[in-house]
Amino acid sequence: MENWDGKEGTSAFHVPEWMIQFADQKQEFNKRPTKIGRRSLSRSISQSSTDSYSSAASYTDSSDDETSPRDKQQKNSKGSSDFCVKNIKQAEFGRREIEIAEQEMPALMALRKRAQGEKPLAGAKIVGCTHITAQTAVLMETLGALGAQCRWAACNIYSTLNEVAAALAESGFPVFAWKGESEDDFWWCIDRCVNVEGWQPNMILDDGGDLTHWIYKKYPNMFKKIKGIVEESVTGVHRLYQLSKAGKLCVPAMNVNDSVTKQKFDNLYCCRESILDGLKRTTDMMFGGKQVVVCGYGEVGKGCCAALKAMGSIVYVTEIDPICALQACMDGFRLVKLNEVIRQVDIVITCTGNKNVVTREHLDRMKNSCIVCNMGHSNTEIDVASLRTPELTWERVRSQVDHVIWPDGKRIVLLAEGRLLNLSCSTVPTFVLSITATTQALALIELYNAPEGRYKQDVYLLPKKMDEYVASLHLPTFDAHLTELTDEQAKYLGLNKNGPFKPNYYRY
Amino acid sequence: MENWDGKEGTSAFHVPEWMIQFADQKQEFNKRPTKIGRRSLSRSISQSSTDSYSSAASYTDSSDDETSPRDKQQKNSKGSSDFCVKNIKQAEFGRREIEIAEQEMPALMALRKRAQGEKPLAGAKIVGCTHITAQTAVLMETLGALGAQCRWAACNIYSTLNEVAAALAESGFPVFAWKGESEDDFWWCIDRCVNVEGWQPNMILDDGGDLTHWIYKKYPNMFKKIKGIVEESVTGVHRLYQLSKAGKLCVPAMNVNDSVTKQKFDNLYCCRESILDGLKRTTDMMFGGKQVVVCGYGEVGKGCCAALKAMGSIVYVTEIDPICALQACMDGFRLVKLNEVIRQVDIVITCTGNKNVVTREHLDRMKNSCIVCNMGHSNTEIDVASLRTPELTWERVRSQVDHVIWPDGKRIVLLAEGRLLNLSCSTVPTFVLSITATTQALALIELYNAPEGRYKQDVYLLPKKMDEYVASLHLPTFDAHLTELTDEQAKYLGLNKNGPFKPNYYRY
Amino acid sequence: MENWDGKEGTSAFHVPEWMIQFADQKQEFNKRPTKIGRRSLSRSISQSSTDSYSSAASYTDSSDDETSPRDKQQKNSKGSSDFCVKNIKQAEFGRREIEIAEQEMPALMALRKRAQGEKPLAGAKIVGCTHITAQTAVLMETLGALGAQCRWAACNIYSTLNEVAAALAESGFPVFAWKGESEDDFWWCIDRCVNVEGWQPNMILDDGGDLTHWIYKKYPNMFKKIKGIVEESVTGVHRLYQLSKAGKLCVPAMNVNDSVTKQKFDNLYCCRESILDGLKRTTDMMFGGKQVVVCGYGEVGKGCCAALKAMGSIVYVTEIDPICALQACMDGFRLVKLNEVIRQVDIVITCTGNKNVVTREHLDRMKNSCIVCNMGHSNTEIDVASLRTPELTWERVRSQVDHVIWPDGKRIVLLAEGRLLNLSCSTVPTFVLSITATTQALALIELYNAPEGRYKQDVYLLPKKMDEYVASLHLPTFDAHLTELTDEQAKYLGLNKNGPFKPNYYRY
Amino acid sequence: MENWDGKEGTSAFHVPEWMIQFADQKQEFNKRPTKIGRRSLSRSISQSSTDSYSSAASYTDSSDDETSPRDKQQKNSKGSSDFCVKNIKQAEFGRREIEIAEQEMPALMALRKRAQGEKPLAGAKIVGCTHITAQTAVLMETLGALGAQCRWAACNIYSTLNEVAAALAESGFPVFAWKGESEDDFWWCIDRCVNVEGWQPNMILDDGGDLTHWIYKKYPNMFKKIKGIVEESVTGVHRLYQLSKAGKLCVPAMNVNDSVTKQKFDNLYCCRESILDGLKRTTDMMFGGKQVVVCGYGEVGKGCCAALKAMGSIVYVTEIDPICALQACMDGFRLVKLNEVIRQVDIVITCTGNKNVVTREHLDRMKNSCIVCNMGHSNTEIDVASLRTPELTWERVRSQVDHVIWPDGKRIVLLAEGRLLNLSCSTVPTFVLSITATTQALALIELYNAPEGRYKQDVYLLPKKMDEYVASLHLPTFDAHLTELTDEQAKYLGLNKNGPFKPNYYRY
Repeated sequence: MENWDGKEGTSAFHVPEWMIQFADQKQEFNKRPTKIGRRSLSRSISQSSTDSYSSAASYTDSSDDETSPRDKQQKNSKGSSDFCVKNIKQAEFGRREIEIAEQEMPALMALRKRAQGEKPLAGAKIVGCTHITAQTAVLMETLGALGAQCRWAACNIYSTLNEVAAALAESGFPVFAWKGESEDDFWWCIDRCVNVEGWQPNMILDDGGDLTHWIYKKYPNMFKKIKGIVEESVTGVHRLYQLSKAGKLCVPAMNVNDSVTKQKFDNLYCCRESILDGLKRTTDMMFGGKQVVVCGYGEVGKGCCAALKAMGSIVYVTEIDPICALQACMDGFRLVKLNEVIRQVDIVITCTGNKNVVTREHLDRMKNSCIVCNMGHSNTEIDVASLRTPELTWERVRSQVDHVIWPDGKRIVLLAEGRLLNLSCSTVPTFVLSITATTQALALIELYNAPEGRYKQDVYLLPKKMDEYVASLHLPTFDAHLTELTDEQAKYLGLNKNGPFKPNYYRY
Repeated sequence: MENWDGKEGTSAFHVPEWMIQFADQKQEFNKRPTKIGRRSLSRSISQSSTDSYSSAASYTDSSDDETSPRDKQQKNSKGSSDFCVKNIKQAEFGRREIEIAEQEMPALMALRKRAQGEKPLAGAKIVGCTHITAQTAVLMETLGALGAQCRWAACNIYSTLNEVAAALAESGFPVFAWKGESEDDFWWCIDRCVNVEGWQPNMILDDGGDLTHWIYKKYPNMFKKIKGIVEESVTGVHRLYQLSKAGKLCVPAMNVNDSVTKQKFDNLYCCRESILDGLKRTTDMMFGGKQVVVCGYGEVGKGCCAALKAMGSIVYVTEIDPICALQACMDGFRLVKLNEVIRQVDIVITCTGNKNVVTREHLDRMKNSCIVCNMGHSNTEIDVASLRTPELTWERVRSQVDHVIWPDGKRIVLLAEGRLLNLSCSTVPTFVLSITATTQALALIELYNAPEGRYKQDVYLLPKKMDEYVASLHLPTFDAHLTELTDEQAKYLGLNKNGPFKPNYYRY
Repeated sequence: MENWDGKEGTSAFHVPEWMIQFADQKQEFNKRPTKIGRRSLSRSISQSSTDSYSSAASYTDSSDDETSPRDKQQKNSKGSSDFCVKNIKQAEFGRREIEIAEQEMPALMALRKRAQGEKPLAGAKIVGCTHITAQTAVLMETLGALGAQCRWAACNIYSTLNEVAAALAESGFPVFAWKGESEDDFWWCIDRCVNVEGWQPNMILDDGGDLTHWIYKKYPNMFKKIKGIVEESVTGVHRLYQLSKAGKLCVPAMNVNDSVTKQKFDNLYCCRESILDGLKRTTDMMFGGKQVVVCGYGEVGKGCCAALKAMGSIVYVTEIDPICALQACMDGFRLVKLNEVIRQVDIVITCTGNKNVVTREHLDRMKNSCIVCNMGHSNTEIDVASLRTPELTWERVRSQVDHVIWPDGKRIVLLAEGRLLNLSCSTVPTFVLSITATTQALALIELYNAPEGRYKQDVYLLPKKMDEYVASLHLPTFDAHLTELTDEQAKYLGLNKNGPFKPNYYRY
Repeated sequence: MENWDGKEGTSAFHVPEWMIQFADQKQEFNKRPTKIGRRSLSRSISQSSTDSYSSAASYTDSSDDETSPRDKQQKNSKGSSDFCVKNIKQAEFGRREIEIAEQEMPALMALRKRAQGEKPLAGAKIVGCTHITAQTAVLMETLGALGAQCRWAACNIYSTLNEVAAALAESGFPVFAWKGESEDDFWWCIDRCVNVEGWQPNMILDDGGDLTHWIYKKYPNMFKKIKGIVEESVTGVHRLYQLSKAGKLCVPAMNVNDSVTKQKFDNLYCCRESILDGLKRTTDMMFGGKQVVVCGYGEVGKGCCAALKAMGSIVYVTEIDPICALQACMDGFRLVKLNEVIRQVDIVITCTGNKNVVTREHLDRMKNSCIVCNMGHSNTEIDVASLRTPELTWERVRSQVDHVIWPDGKRIVLLAEGRLLNLSCSTVPTFVLSITATTQALALIELYNAPEGRYKQDVYLLPKKMDEYVASLHLPTFDAHLTELTDEQAKYLGLNKNGPFKPNYYRY
């Protein structure tokens, strides 16, 4: 079977190396001798699917049960066995979590209300692969209320909340997921969602691209009936653009990751809070007066810098892009090269999406007790591997906190082993997840209902009007009152009174 | 002669009403009996060309000289008469102002240095129509150093600094501009730039679109030799998009107004400072504890809100766009309808680009001493005309400050008669003008040197790499040190080490 | 035995009711029949001594050992038995914690260095009663290095870190404390510190006043040899002023609580951070856009407001004091009565030191999901008792988080049952504890070495010069470089070059 | 005649050198040959009395009239000649200014209303010496409404608004003041206020101490009838403390300068705004990205730093006091010595009250275009005299703006020749003046009505309750609603429900 990424060498476009590495890595997996037995369907798993996840994410402890869910007979109260979860008995607890989440996801609940009249997803058969949390459950049940049939797997082997999965299974959703899946479990679950007698998906909701990848590899013919893919993650979106450039994308895809609400809200506003939260929970440090260097001044970096400045830290910024650099200057941050401040700072935070931003050489020069952490999109930013040398001692002082000790006694405080601080050491507010979930729901509705020809075999951003709609559904949370254009004003501005209100290139 | 805006009725696009009004207004002008004599070439003048300009903009007072410059014999020290300014004797004073401006425009000076080797504008014949200030002079002399020949008129009848115009004329630049032109003077000056024996422009640099309009109307054949238009203003850019939609744009045009550096720096950062400056200079008010409503949360509104919040004001925001509205919420501002707070606020600031945002009804309900001003892009936002009724008394208490007094004694403090506060009541920092001027220079270079076919008869945004270059030229001002990608990192990210660093849809 | 608070009725001063209540409460205790046996020495325990303490405060779990430490035979490695801790074997773990704390308490370490030459506490016999944490251990060992002999008990029955107590005992400090003491244990431990053959304290270091109270009650004659009391807490300081007013204070006392560094740093800067930390750890809420009312705009309220405003919350303030109220206005907060906003806010935070600031009536009117918490100095601010009625359901959803559910389904989220949020739900940074500990050490040195007559039987604030010295010892942490006055400047200002630099009434 | 400062040599207290200098300077004046004629009564004028004052302070131009007011026959419309102003005909214009000021001084107007019933100043004969502005006029007319008779002179030879003085004279107030007095005029005016047939003052309201000084020198017997002095300025207060220490103060004096409302509001909040205003009006600079060093982190420095940080400047702080230094650290500013950053900063601001904080050596090392200005309390902070050397060229580029040019072409931008930036280059908001004026009025009422023995011959701070009352009178401006204690709460806190609410040492 052909590699899904296709032959990139002939492309006129720049291809990020990490994509190529990703492809190589899979090749390598494929070359290795196949493990015996059921659990070795494939090893081509995305990086994000194995990221560790906040320990706060588990509600109840069922560590005593060591049997694999795949080996259990499971049946919900209505007699259905079309699911695979850790323990169907946890359904009630999970239901309560879902109900609490519903209270904070008013936008999805509003969609449900509207769905009482029309069912925009009637006939939709959605296969999904996302983190399985109470918030996802609210999304899935909303999709159901809108008329869709859903089958669901987890996009990460650690992040499933077993209680929530149980509640969904109890309500009749075919869910295949549990916390602590093996890589084989991971693909097995995805396969169980897709490979069903008498049911074929016509929509894909993916987070990371693994589900899409699986269908490309195993069931390419399914794409004939699929109306579109909705993808949320940076990684998954990159994969889709790559497919598109290679001419291999055979259905329209919606890039939810780059929607305004995702970029500006999830990245800027959420990171503004989670950087403080992550640092406090792990180190109990005081921010006032601390010297911090933030590598990268994109949305994430902007959020981190604003928060730390507000808390009385002295913040330095590094950047490669002169426009972002000039923004940092105008916002009151000294723009430096990392080398210039590495000896004096108390905290180093990476937010670049790049690799080896903090090298062993930097780590060698940091002062005692310097804290190092990563808020960027993967675990490559800090060269953690370079710290695995014999002369350095690692000491785990708390969950997610390591002291790396130099021969002279100097200690570096490394958080989450360089993985995402906000995912590992803090929790994500429901409000932010609500914005993303609503965007996903609307993207599914748009792709499913779009007239023939509106979308081609390409990757699209969500229509601005939908972005605006997502935002408007969240305003009641803040008791915010939008002003409406008068007819005269709409005419003057050349706008429809209901939007969209801005040209596509508007930057917000 | 055909109206330059073309037949819009058949367009599929929304046409802002103010553009149509603009066209109508010109029609009306044309219908009026032509005034006798030289001064009536045309009356079709853009709104922005008659905006009043800060009084701070004049250095020396030559009010005694009442003779029109057009009636004077003028000659510079080298014997040239190819110019028309107020008083060539003011050249020395103007030269000193230009020298001071040069110190704060390092980016243009850097371009000049590079031009010692290559002359990217050799052969360029640029006709320009902009505000004529010390900063413009630095731009013009930079264009000259890059190889171009320039002829220049003013884009506003009030904004010319006579001393600077004199200095340019003395240095051999054919400049046709003075402070206090009549409308006929205005068009006469433009015509003198364009209508020259033995010289025909091949590039246009415009601010407001009047020069472009004039050539369309009078010398449409000139466009055969013109390689492109660079336009800075909102108004001028709208006109160009209109032409383009109507299929009437016959050369490529560069939209400088929507470049990142212009939008984010000129609007956000500059307004953050000028709102405070404009309010203080006019009213000496204290910001702390004041209740303010800011209408519109675009870049200008964001800047105003951030500054006032930082100074201890309590800020409310109104918005029509739910995305900007949600940003206002997340930034800590209550989103309201104007009616909800109009009775309680101490200051009302409009930043919408819309019309009649503040109506007579609102004004009637404001409390005593409420300050009303406009930071948006034209003077339509506050319905000032509605205040010209017999029962209200106007009292001019300072330059740019009127008290409008209700029969019951209530006073509203109206600033700059609803025109732009930052243009009328504060000055624009050279640093901001430097960013715009550098962008204009690079846009001219790009259009002039672009290989056949790169640009068609359309309106373009500046290539991102040029935006990044403009930014990079301004970093030394802040002693800011940019980080360079390693080869390995560039490969990993799939980027060229010299940029561009972001996809086109990146929002900054 | 006479009540230690004396006869207050004749005093010309206002006596806070809570002091009287406190006295009453003790009376009541005294009236109750004395319990049989060893554990009933007294029940007159201060409120603060039973405040619950952050669960983060325990390092290792030794829950299996149910024997009371008082019933165990304990001996350290040098053969001493003059201590009583949970488990002497935990000493090594505790020592490591102390070493880590030492790294962040440079001021005390600097004092130790200076002590190598002189021993300002030689001959001092200090009895102490404070929280027993790694930071306290650094203080105690510093006092030892300065020449003092120390005996120590815990000021709170929950807050002792057993491992640290073990480490101190192992090093030879007579420590009597463990986590989870009964009230009888509490007084027994204090008594063991004081009531020793052949050793009599000449200095008291107290936190809450219980130790002082005990000596007043049981060993009043000891005060003949005691040179002074150093007291840190609000409660303890109030008790001392009460004694002083009643003419019953028989030694000088130093009020450490109201020193500048304590008030401005511990309260303002620390609460600025801990309000965010406490809310996040308990609720994972998003701050952006939330409406918050902060009751009280003292140092704690100022810190809370600044932090929440910076995170994008909309903050309202209530105040009784017009000066603080005017500060709130100038800082940009709407000053309201609680009733005016109680229906609309998402969070209610009390910081008043008052009682019943949030009443049942307020709680009844709050909207669904409103969060209620207390940052003030005791647990009286929210009338939590009023929520213990049959029609309301309490649901413990996490540690320190209760949902109180109204019959109509409305839920109020109550944190730490109205006790101190920052003590209960976040941790206190070592840096802040370092400031307080250093102040305590210097206060002890000052009182111990003061010449006869400098201090009378009264309550004193730390001499400003000492406050300044404490601050100066903490500047190196920030790599901060102080400027020194020239001789000429010192003469001009009429100041000693080494301070004090401000008049006593200076407010900072 | 004895020097009013008395013999300081024997004092046990530190005497600031500038006080001694002040005395010396006066000695020197006295030694100079007395000028012939009427205008040489004395030369012993305070430094502050000759500080230049903002040019904005003049409304109408009467530069044509060169006759000295002392040489004119003046009579108001009621026939009185007991005044001396520039031009009584300007009264109407002045009255309008006073009316506008009344609108923004609600606290004084509230006092007037209460005065309709009681006249707390009935019988008071107040002699005043302050800046004569519209705001002062509102104060004087309020004192009149409260029952007092007033006579008034100016405390500064430049600051009088002639129109306002005329309006006061027209209303019957004996005012002796005009803009541009000579030093002899200055003392003559004061003398005319004091030296009156049949009228003797019993209260003094002073700003700078010159009036008090004059009475001490010329009419010491007057103090027998004087009930007290109210003094507002730093300088005047220092003089009073000096007198007190020397045992020469013969009446009670009220130090208004150190009242909470003055310190925290006038200094912190007002400077937070005026630093931006002063810099913008003089230089039109952009704050974003600029590097600034602020010398001194008292209230003024705190205000400057907060404002500049908020506008995107990078701010460094210098301090001599470790407590203020630690505050700067915790607020997020790097604490440096001036030398460490002098080469790199764009702006230097002094706020120390010290002398020679910026020396010639510093000035020599500054970079080109560095801006230097002073926000402290006198003009000694920058060693401006050191710049008056032949190799440096001074160029006046605007009012209050000098370029000092080094031989190599480097320019330093010196504002207001090192005098107070906020006084010279911006205006003071009426709201702040209202706070001070109300405090002065209440201080006069308190001293005038205090029972025998409450105040001795000493310098007092305003009773806290009065400070609180001043604040409460200003809350309605912000529509601020104060919470009232319940009886139960007041009892609990041991407070009177009407205040005072804080102990004397409370720092706010």
